[in-house]
Amino acid sequence: MSANSPIGPVVGMVGAGQLARMTQQSAIALGVELRVLANTSDESAARVIVDTRLGDYRELADLREFATGCHAITFDHEHVPTEHIRALAADGYAVRPGADALVHAQDKAVMRERLTSFGAPCPAWTRVSGGAADGVSASAAEGVSASGAEGVKEVSAFAAEHGWPVVLKAIRGGYDGRGVWVCRTPAEVEEALSGGVPLMAEAFVPFERELAVLVARSPHGQGVSYPVVETVQQDGICVEVLAPAPGLDPEEAAEAQRIALQIAHELGVTGLLAVEMFQTADGLLVNELAMRPHNSGHWTIDGSRTSQFEQHLRAVLDLPLGSPSMSAPVVVMANLLGGDDPDLFKRYEHVMAHDPGIKLHFYGKEVRPGRKIGHVTAVGDDLETVRARARHAAVYLTTGEYT
Amino acid sequence: MSANSPIGPVVGMVGAGQLARMTQQSAIALGVELRVLANTSDESAARVIVDTRLGDYRELADLREFATGCHAITFDHEHVPTEHIRALAADGYAVRPGADALVHAQDKAVMRERLTSFGAPCPAWTRVSGGAADGVSASAAEGVSASGAEGVKEVSAFAAEHGWPVVLKAIRGGYDGRGVWVCRTPAEVEEALSGGVPLMAEAFVPFERELAVLVARSPHGQGVSYPVVETVQQDGICVEVLAPAPGLDPEEAAEAQRIALQIAHELGVTGLLAVEMFQTADGLLVNELAMRPHNSGHWTIDGSRTSQFEQHLRAVLDLPLGSPSMSAPVVVMANLLGGDDPDLFKRYEHVMAHDPGIKLHFYGKEVRPGRKIGHVTAVGDDLETVRARARHAAVYLTTGEYT
Repeated sequence: MSANSPIGPVVGMVGAGQLARMTQQSAIALGVELRVLANTSDESAARVIVDTRLGDYRELADLREFATGCHAITFDHEHVPTEHIRALAADGYAVRPGADALVHAQDKAVMRERLTSFGAPCPAWTRVSGGAADGVSASAAEGVSASGAEGVKEVSAFAAEHGWPVVLKAIRGGYDGRGVWVCRTPAEVEEALSGGVPLMAEAFVPFERELAVLVARSPHGQGVSYPVVETVQQDGICVEVLAPAPGLDPEEAAEAQRIALQIAHELGVTGLLAVEMFQTADGLLVNELAMRPHNSGHWTIDGSRTSQFEQHLRAVLDLPLGSPSMSAPVVVMANLLGGDDPDLFKRYEHVMAHDPGIKLHFYGKEVRPGRKIGHVTAVGDDLETVRARARHAAVYLTTGEYT
Repeated sequence: MSANSPIGPVVGMVGAGQLARMTQQSAIALGVELRVLANTSDESAARVIVDTRLGDYRELADLREFATGCHAITFDHEHVPTEHIRALAADGYAVRPGADALVHAQDKAVMRERLTSFGAPCPAWTRVSGGAADGVSASAAEGVSASGAEGVKEVSAFAAEHGWPVVLKAIRGGYDGRGVWVCRTPAEVEEALSGGVPLMAEAFVPFERELAVLVARSPHGQGVSYPVVETVQQDGICVEVLAPAPGLDPEEAAEAQRIALQIAHELGVTGLLAVEMFQTADGLLVNELAMRPHNSGHWTIDGSRTSQFEQHLRAVLDLPLGSPSMSAPVVVMANLLGGDDPDLFKRYEHVMAHDPGIKLHFYGKEVRPGRKIGHVTAVGDDLETVRARARHAAVYLTTGEYT
């Protein structure tokens, strides 16, 4: 950035998981110096980023020290308190996305209110009394109980209009299926509310499949959309992404992209925005938002001319955005979920010999059952072939089973 | 590698230039821990690799300390003394390529002798007296002078058979056009010899163009060849690489790949081998060898399913090799050579806006005139269009001129 420095701008990413780790691959190419704020030095990104700072993202003092010298601040996760993000912006830092945008990925009730206000299609929803109003778990048991009774009444009334089951969701902090309860009776609602976590209710959507649209938006206002993908979930965790979404009607694909770009525009997103959608017989409904590189975009590393990680860096630095076009007709990404055996590397030999075109991505994380520890990508012309290749590699790597 | 470690094997790369830097991008994906031996902590790769060790690659003690704990040792350059490589192998380290192979990329006379022995096509060549026989520059001026006279006689005799001009080459240490003298008279030969550097003579080849073939070979003996490319040189420095080599006869392309794979096999190369060739009216002639990721293969990052850097890691770890197939019909790489203005980053905005598909690679090196500080890659269907795009970006980034 300075006239004599061989390096480009410094981007500070709060968090040091696999998203920051993969961002480093793009930062290396662009000559951007990536700095991360990690909890410990053995986290996924901390292993591969020289400028790793240790600190607590919940502490403003740590965030301020981390931000010093950064040309832009961005995030590997959505857990940084909104008020700290506002404080950094008030200090003069370019925080991207900013607090006013990011809150929509942090607070599902705020998101639903806002999306509804400009007509983005959402499932029917309502706020539910109970839990702590400010997003902090209630500590007084009697308080929970009192508002819990009211909450059950509210949800029952909602169900009378929209039918059972009702989906209760934690307003803040849920992910990968955590913080979601599908309730079929008032008793189940009562149980979900007993945790004291602020919840909201949504109509259960009998969807045909789940789609995701990844868009980027820069402070300039330039927007770009990747092709719509299908995400395949198991137990609330994404296991496979098919790009582009097979057999999707081109008009419905364009509509999905239009919705995602509109949300990015209306919310003033800077950086990436992933919009998870339900495809139903009656059209598209927005499910969740994320404002960072997203699992549904990992396929872009090997399957697009611009990876989502490069795109995010370009967007947060207000550089012109890169081409989202695909480098092959079909791309399938399969997540590697930790199994019982921690040593995936010994199985590289088989998968590489079996399929010289398979691309492996390993996050350098300790293996724990169900944890996302890597992903594989296959590209080609025929969906069933490409999908079978990705599945074979993922299953073999995580379990040693030959499918 | 160990049952409870979240990381894969440790690969130690001696040297910390841009080749090691770009290898890190692939190491991150594979979960390989890349360690580099750098001279200073601000070198290109040292900026992006956590496990950077400082030391002198000419000192065996430094190399031994560096090698401790590495599952494989490899190189970013060819300057490590052969005897040190032998010592590391004797210590039990997997050094790839090994000294017996690498010497052919370090010593041009040894290379010519060996290639000639198994019939690889080479220009006519001869050893030349003068300089120091053991590869160390002579210090006794009278010695140089005495053998210099004999050298001139030898080269003149060689020219009587093969014609002037004659190309004199430093047997060790030359690169990017340095260490090469095209001599048209005995007086020019005498001047070249006066440097006291051991030289060899080759017939001047009136080539049509220069080609390069990049192959990989693993300790298992598996070999793979990337498509043959055309390399465009200016003042002895590669400025552009066209993949695949435009209009190359398929039989000649196959012959070039056969020659390169044969050399890898005969020399027992482990890792990458780049074979630079002259295409002449009478067929192909081998010019130079390199046993590491090579400038002629930078296009593979964006244009092949397996980048040369991933391929090198797979080969030195004796993993099955990856697909070398192209991700687009035409790929053009253009080097960024330092100009007068050190601040390339400020010109990102134009090139990214002008061409959303252009891929930028910036090495984080201080800008000095003529120094390789990065490269750009364009992919597409039409050679002239793709080439113009790569050129535009390279010229604009380095000079600010709009072509």
